[in-house]
This record gives sequence, C-alpha cells and structure tokens, in this order.
Amino acid sequence: MQTTTTTRTTSGSVATDETDRLIASNKVEGTAVYNRQGERLGSVYNFMVDKRSGQVEYAVMSFGGFLGIGDSYHPLPWKALTYDTAKGGYVVDLDKDRLQRAPSYASGETANWRDPAYGRQIDDYYGGFLRS
Amino acid sequence: MQTTTTTRTTSGSVATDETDRLIASNKVEGTAVYNRQGERLGSVYNFMVDKRSGQVEYAVMSFGGFLGIGDSYHPLPWKALTYDTAKGGYVVDLDKDRLQRAPSYASGETANWRDPAYGRQIDDYYGGFLRS
Repeated sequence: MQTTTTTRTTSGSVATDETDRLIASNKVEGTAVYNRQGERLGSVYNFMVDKRSGQVEYAVMSFGGFLGIGDSYHPLPWKALTYDTAKGGYVVDLDKDRLQRAPSYASGETANWRDPAYGRQIDDYYGGFLRS
Repeated sequence: MQTTTTTRTTSGSVATDETDRLIASNKVEGTAVYNRQGERLGSVYNFMVDKRSGQVEYAVMSFGGFLGIGDSYHPLPWKALTYDTAKGGYVVDLDKDRLQRAPSYASGETANWRDPAYGRQIDDYYGGFLRS
C-alpha cells in the first residue's frame, strides 16, 4: 500500500513526501505515535541518525503536555516503531505506565547521547519490545 | 573529534544534539552544504529515509535563491555528503555546473520518489562521486 502526502503552496515549501518505501525526515517529525490500544501517546519530535552509516537509531517522542509546554522527551529505538497507514502514525507496543517510567528528559534539557551507555540504557529498557 | 551544539531556551525546545556518532534529524535539516572549493552550494532541506530499514537514502539540498524564494531542490545520495566539522557543514565533491545540471525540482513541485527509476537516476548521476 502506498500513501503520498503532497503540499503545494505559493510560499515555496517543497512537498514532504512519502512513498511505500521512503519517507521524508520532516514528515517523520511531528507524526503521531499510538500504542496498540489506539491511545495517542505523543508525536515524534526528531530522530537520531548515525552520521557515518546513515542509519536511524532512535526516534525521540514528545509526550505529555501541549508541544513546548511541559513536554517530556522519550527516545525510542527506531525499531520499536511501526508505521500504521490506517492510523496515519506510528504504533509502539507500550502501555502508558511503561512509557512514563522510561528514560526521558524534560524540555530544555539535553539527552546524554555522547555517553554510549545512554543508548544502551534505552535499548535495554525497550529490549523486550523490539521487533525482531 | 566530537562536537556538540545544545540549545537551552525557556520556550521548551529540546536540544538539537550532535555527538561524534549521532546527529539529530532536525539538526541535519538546515545544515550548510559546501563543495571542495569551499563554496557554499546550499543547505539540506530534508532527507529521505527507508521506512523499513531506517536507512537514510537521499538528502535533499535546497539550492539557489533565499530559502523559499526561487529555490530548487536537489536530491543527493546520502553517501555523497561528508560532514566537515571545521566548516560546520557537509561537503560534497561537486562543482556548481554539475550540480545545476543534476536532477532537481522547483519549489512547489514534488519529487517522484514513488518511481524507483527516480532514485536510480540520482544514484547514476552522482555515481562517480560516491564515497566507496
């Protein structure tokens, strides 16, 4: 199944496009994230890419209040997200409680991506939920 | 070598972070692109990710006028970009002439990502310049 979203405006913005295989980075950003019960958990704020390989490693989900006010940021392994075309967003196999206890940081703080242990902590926390 | 750029504001924006290995997607977007002669060619507008594998395939560079006015968009294979920390941007081994003749589309148009031949056209055009 293939979906395409294009936007044409006179302000010069380029289509943020999606095909059955590729998705534009600025379309991923802002996409809703749901759990399997259909509850909206938050949305993707940004994602972390390995500079050398070009492999997306983590998606950072914003969760909580209105965006920018009281949000917390939860990095998820990219593999934990599955795109659901019917919902028009990503699905992650998590309940809200588990998500709330997950590694996170608040607006205005930094994630400690420089420490390899930080990524491992995220991988370990979600280890049981990763798609094989 | 490792560089980190963090932004702390009271408006709730999260740090767009970079480490020696990982870079945030919203930091890639907007990063300058230079050629080896040091000329600024444009900046990364967005990049295309394979949804299943999470592999970045193409970076779309905006080129030409001020962003949003008269820009053209040039998809480049991700492998054609090398991050140069001294310049604070990506370097691509291209002269302006070759870039101007490359596959591109204008503001308000869509790239035909749905056609696999489109990606191959880009790969072929830049084939001689890809880092092995």
